[in-house]
Amino acid sequence: MAGRELTSIRSPRVKAARRLAKRAFRRRDRRFLAEGPQAVREALALPGRLVELFTTAEAETRHADLVLAAEAAGVPVLRVSGEVMAELAQTVTPQGLLAVCELVDVPLESVLDPAPRLVTVLAHVRDPGNAGTVLRTADAAGAESVIFTDASVDPYNGKCVRASAGSLFHLPVVAGPRIGALIPALRACGLTVLAADGGGDTTLDDAIDKGLLSRPTAWIFGNEAWGLPAEILEAADEVVGVPIYGRAESLNLGTAAAVCLYASARAQR
Amino acid sequence: MAGRELTSIRSPRVKAARRLAKRAFRRRDRRFLAEGPQAVREALALPGRLVELFTTAEAETRHADLVLAAEAAGVPVLRVSGEVMAELAQTVTPQGLLAVCELVDVPLESVLDPAPRLVTVLAHVRDPGNAGTVLRTADAAGAESVIFTDASVDPYNGKCVRASAGSLFHLPVVAGPRIGALIPALRACGLTVLAADGGGDTTLDDAIDKGLLSRPTAWIFGNEAWGLPAEILEAADEVVGVPIYGRAESLNLGTAAAVCLYASARAQR
Repeated sequence: MAGRELTSIRSPRVKAARRLAKRAFRRRDRRFLAEGPQAVREALALPGRLVELFTTAEAETRHADLVLAAEAAGVPVLRVSGEVMAELAQTVTPQGLLAVCELVDVPLESVLDPAPRLVTVLAHVRDPGNAGTVLRTADAAGAESVIFTDASVDPYNGKCVRASAGSLFHLPVVAGPRIGALIPALRACGLTVLAADGGGDTTLDDAIDKGLLSRPTAWIFGNEAWGLPAEILEAADEVVGVPIYGRAESLNLGTAAAVCLYASARAQR
Repeated sequence: MAGRELTSIRSPRVKAARRLAKRAFRRRDRRFLAEGPQAVREALALPGRLVELFTTAEAETRHADLVLAAEAAGVPVLRVSGEVMAELAQTVTPQGLLAVCELVDVPLESVLDPAPRLVTVLAHVRDPGNAGTVLRTADAAGAESVIFTDASVDPYNGKCVRASAGSLFHLPVVAGPRIGALIPALRACGLTVLAADGGGDTTLDDAIDKGLLSRPTAWIFGNEAWGLPAEILEAADEVVGVPIYGRAESLNLGTAAAVCLYASARAQR
């Protein structure tokens, strides 16, 4: 069981964890925070990733299985007061468990060899909730990896981690490549590069009908407000838009990505 | 142009608008609030729906076309101070335009005759942002109407209106029918009733392959956390689940609805 309860947010271990809410510290310490029992369970499944577990007395009872599993894995468990947990956690109703994890991202090369069949790229995606939702959807649709380019939000942003609902721990995530070098690298391993854009010359239905989606594919999704810049649209093999049949002006990013990724999943099976 | 600027939140017109943030007053006054230029533009396109327009001096200049169009349509325009607008608006950064509109929902019978081909039903959807996102997606996918059952969030909730991105004004919305009477009514006009549920016996791919989705269809979507109750699963013609190919436990509601509705749109065309 955890030792004495930490009740001060000035405790060095609490301070060290708390500053991981900032990207600069996450990069420096190579660690991030993941909240809640689901995230703790997923982190435990990846040996060595869970480096510290904060818990409240109440959560220690409610999630005794997870706390015991963490201790069995040699992970230090620190019991904190409800106030300290509220300071550490970023959700309004923290569930009393907070994991400090080592970063999970992998080098780009490792997801391109052997050649994948379905890859998701987030380029210029700025909203962490949207990014996490697309990560979760990519996982569900069977994508083999998700690449966050350097112009996108940090995959370890707390909101992104939460919106991913565990998927950050499920499939390889690449963080930070520049889009300019990325597109040739994707193409070099045999992927057809499709840029998702409502103004595309090809509709998703046309892409399905032409058999385009049965090829190994990298989908690139852009900014929630303004989409993808001209250089990406030009560099892609095709610009594909989800058709709008009614009067909506557009789809939101998570919705459009879901329709595209599931269309690929179906076409490839 | 608008007359003297209202600077007090105790002004009777401001108070009357402000209370529309509460469902009870929306029901009583048969009015709701819609924020921002896009909503004002959509409301103006429906004759008689926009009954009052609040604007800041700045927005009156920036959106002069909309303010003039409202005046030309005989809509009272009330200029308010930035402070009053901040009190009236529910967004963090109000865009200086706030429309008071008459409710736009229609009776159930009106969307079932002539028989529709694609209908979306929200049953037990409680999060207004999710509901608005599904409304927007249903519009984009060409659904002919969206039905909010009595156990779902109010379609006029401010977050739902915003998340719908104008779609509340685009297609007929039915508010408040009880699900028990609804399913027989949907079936009576020739619709196949599909309940979306991850635990369904039929996968979406099977449903497509069997030709199920090319029939006139009503899709029922359930609660974000616990899905659909047993009586709806039993009453539906089929329970259909979006397949999970990777390791995600589930899809979020908006994502699952997008995949289902676009699969229907494609199958029906």
